Amino acid sequence: MKFCPDCAHPLILDIPQGDHLPRHVCRACGTIHYQNPRIIAGCIPVWEDKILICRRAIEPRHGYWTLPAGFMENGEAVEGGAAREAQEEALADVTIGSLITVVNVIKSHQVHMLFRARLNNLNFGVGAESLEVKLIHPSEIPWNDIAFESIRFTLERYIEDQAQGIERLHFHTI
Amino acid sequence: MKFCPDCAHPLILDIPQGDHLPRHVCRACGTIHYQNPRIIAGCIPVWEDKILICRRAIEPRHGYWTLPAGFMENGEAVEGGAAREAQEEALADVTIGSLITVVNVIKSHQVHMLFRARLNNLNFGVGAESLEVKLIHPSEIPWNDIAFESIRFTLERYIEDQAQGIERLHFHTI
Repeated sequence: MKFCPDCAHPLILDIPQGDHLPRHVCRACGTIHYQNPRIIAGCIPVWEDKILICRRAIEPRHGYWTLPAGFMENGEAVEGGAAREAQEEALADVTIGSLITVVNVIKSHQVHMLFRARLNNLNFGVGAESLEVKLIHPSEIPWNDIAFESIRFTLERYIEDQAQGIERLHFHTI
Repeated sequence: MKFCPDCAHPLILDIPQGDHLPRHVCRACGTIHYQNPRIIAGCIPVWEDKILICRRAIEPRHGYWTLPAGFMENGEAVEGGAAREAQEEALADVTIGSLITVVNVIKSHQVHMLFRARLNNLNFGVGAESLEVKLIHPSEIPWNDIAFESIRFTLERYIEDQAQGIERLHFHTI
């Protein structure tokens, strides 16, 4: 961030009065431009004893397997974002259930929030950002080809909780 | 957002290829500037049967009562942000517990995430953004002077769950 998005003046890094961190400050119009973590919303779509996974058609991690997830948008709820991503990436109609993981991905300035979800029907398909979408039994998860650590963590916790018949919320920081 | 933070060129609103929403796009350097919801992290600090509340010294809602909460920063976890805000606003040393509420505040482009917390000692005080900080019994909550609906929702759910001896996670959209 080099220039003020409001007035185009060059920005400086400065600690505003009463603050404790350096911010991008505009000396021309006075605006302080804060930068904060973004939410990645996603879900595990479940059908009977199977889960829906997607192979990525985009970078990062092109060709690796993931759960439908993506940036939460302004104007929607986290749960709504998770359902929308399932629709976009796997053409999947889901009902969002309980929150299973909150993963802080410090370096990427992201918080990943994944939900359990019910697949409402079998009319899923390959969305624009996917190469392949399939329903698999948890024993068939391609552990060596999982795209992200937050997804691996979520799948592991899902299997553990399923085995115990419980639905917990798990935190993790990467 | 009118000018490109990377190159200062005027931005246009356009739907990028493969996208479905208008974004701030720079025709000069090609950068797409996404805008996404921000996380407000906070907690209910608890000491025996009492909770810690703060009266706001800043706008919005100057003079109204709230729980310690504020924008999550890059480089920290949600739980860490919640603990930091308790320190800043109430000089309170807390141990973060379970997540109690996730509140989507659609118009403000915010997601409020509040945790149960244990106050580690009674050395709390009035932080720079507070007028007053006090430990109260839930029966003393100043319901007519609560700053935000997300805080009211959180306090209500806390009391209900306490009465039942359980710790649930509650979602709400405003």
